[in-house]
Amino acid sequence: MSNNIFRKRQELEGITSLDDLKSETIDVLTSHESIRAFNSKTIPGDYLEAIITSARSAPTSSNLQAYSIIVVSSQEKKDSLATYSGDQNFIREAPVFLVFCADIHRLKYVTNRQGYQFEGDSLEMFLLASMDATLTMQNALVASEALGLGAVPVGSIRNEPIKVIEELNLPKGVYALVGLAIGYEKEGVRRGIKPRLPQKVTVHQEGYSTEHLEEGLKGYDRQMVARRTYEGRRVSIAGEPERDGLEYGWCEHTARRCTRPETIAASASLRENLRAILESHGFSFK
Amino acid sequence: MSNNIFRKRQELEGITSLDDLKSETIDVLTSHESIRAFNSKTIPGDYLEAIITSARSAPTSSNLQAYSIIVVSSQEKKDSLATYSGDQNFIREAPVFLVFCADIHRLKYVTNRQGYQFEGDSLEMFLLASMDATLTMQNALVASEALGLGAVPVGSIRNEPIKVIEELNLPKGVYALVGLAIGYEKEGVRRGIKPRLPQKVTVHQEGYSTEHLEEGLKGYDRQMVARRTYEGRRVSIAGEPERDGLEYGWCEHTARRCTRPETIAASASLRENLRAILESHGFSFK
Repeated sequence: MSNNIFRKRQELEGITSLDDLKSETIDVLTSHESIRAFNSKTIPGDYLEAIITSARSAPTSSNLQAYSIIVVSSQEKKDSLATYSGDQNFIREAPVFLVFCADIHRLKYVTNRQGYQFEGDSLEMFLLASMDATLTMQNALVASEALGLGAVPVGSIRNEPIKVIEELNLPKGVYALVGLAIGYEKEGVRRGIKPRLPQKVTVHQEGYSTEHLEEGLKGYDRQMVARRTYEGRRVSIAGEPERDGLEYGWCEHTARRCTRPETIAASASLRENLRAILESHGFSFK
Repeated sequence: MSNNIFRKRQELEGITSLDDLKSETIDVLTSHESIRAFNSKTIPGDYLEAIITSARSAPTSSNLQAYSIIVVSSQEKKDSLATYSGDQNFIREAPVFLVFCADIHRLKYVTNRQGYQFEGDSLEMFLLASMDATLTMQNALVASEALGLGAVPVGSIRNEPIKVIEELNLPKGVYALVGLAIGYEKEGVRRGIKPRLPQKVTVHQEGYSTEHLEEGLKGYDRQMVARRTYEGRRVSIAGEPERDGLEYGWCEHTARRCTRPETIAASASLRENLRAILESHGFSFK
């Protein structure tokens, strides 16, 4: 279905006014597509340096830099992390797997080092550190794509937090929030960028509005069905009849995932125990 | 101190191997500097379109798109949000203030619309939605900087969650995670990019290590003191003697912020009540 291969979101959505801007960066951002199959070619050292430097240049709340990045290149460790992250083979294939951690261990260390008591045991600090790690991951992703590499963020690194803590020697106050598999893509894996919900659904003027929600959802469902996005990827619901192709779009797929959240977060232990695990590992949610 | 104005992190840190890569995008990412003073020039419509399209192109966990963006241009609303966000004047000045929200309202709506029960009341879903909003914000920031605009993320939008919920008409399941003020910078506001902790402190090979932590912290303190980063910006601690310039670097500043977290999150209500407020507004932390 080569007519579904769009290089940039501007082309997919028929936004023509951007053509004059001629920004390589805007082109990179709007042509993001997750790549989940890599060939064996290694990443040049200065490419990895550029990716890491880009990550470290991301904004960080109050310059606290409450994150750490673990660079995983050893096949053994990649194999283990693949197994713990929903058994996803592309983690084994990728020459480099970066693990982005929320890190308040360093802040606690520095606070005690200077002779003070750490008072950051709060939901706010958990959130701030998780955001810092997310920001560095996104910069690493954008840098990778700018260099012609393929990449995919891996949220399922949260499936087995305790095993990942042990594998990566994470001290209390550090947990693996999201991974990033990076490499050269296998030929033929690109499907074209994935359509997003229409702008009128996710972007609001001056205040939140659901005025265009139903119209937008219907159009998006039609678009995703036409693209055959969910063929062979349906979420099954016990006791529910199969719906036909026209009825199984983003709304049905998303609703089934939200009523069976283990289809998002593959490990039941994650859903039920994430907070308890993180609380026992140095984070607080007060 | 014009000798402290570095255009890119590669120059600041003396990384020369990247010179061959010649990527505009890497240059944009590694020259990020927060801009907190704007002139009155408006942002062209197609620039804003490119920024929004870039934001919508960010990766999103399981394609759930659990975020919303509120575009705020009205002076009255910008004034109110500035007041609620630590009284920061640059929000009033910026021609556009984007508010990035974690949004599980839409997921609940869609789940019920399809006839299912929403089972995503969990810390994982809160985190996933907050990450989705963070990813879109970072793409909007990078796009803005690629277009020659200045911008700064605004975490203090979390200072007064209830007032922001009312101002932006946010339904249950939607909260304002981070803002982004965008505009053309006032002349002379650039100080050069801010040094970051050395790579050996924040980036680890194969597993977490504190081997280079002390050495890295000492070097960073010297660098930040030489740059006069904290002059006139010290955090005061009741009963503590003033430390001299050499002793007041990133470690001391960060330690004081972590022992007085209200200096990060300006509102005491935020620190103590964020979880309770969000729980009463449709989020769960189970």
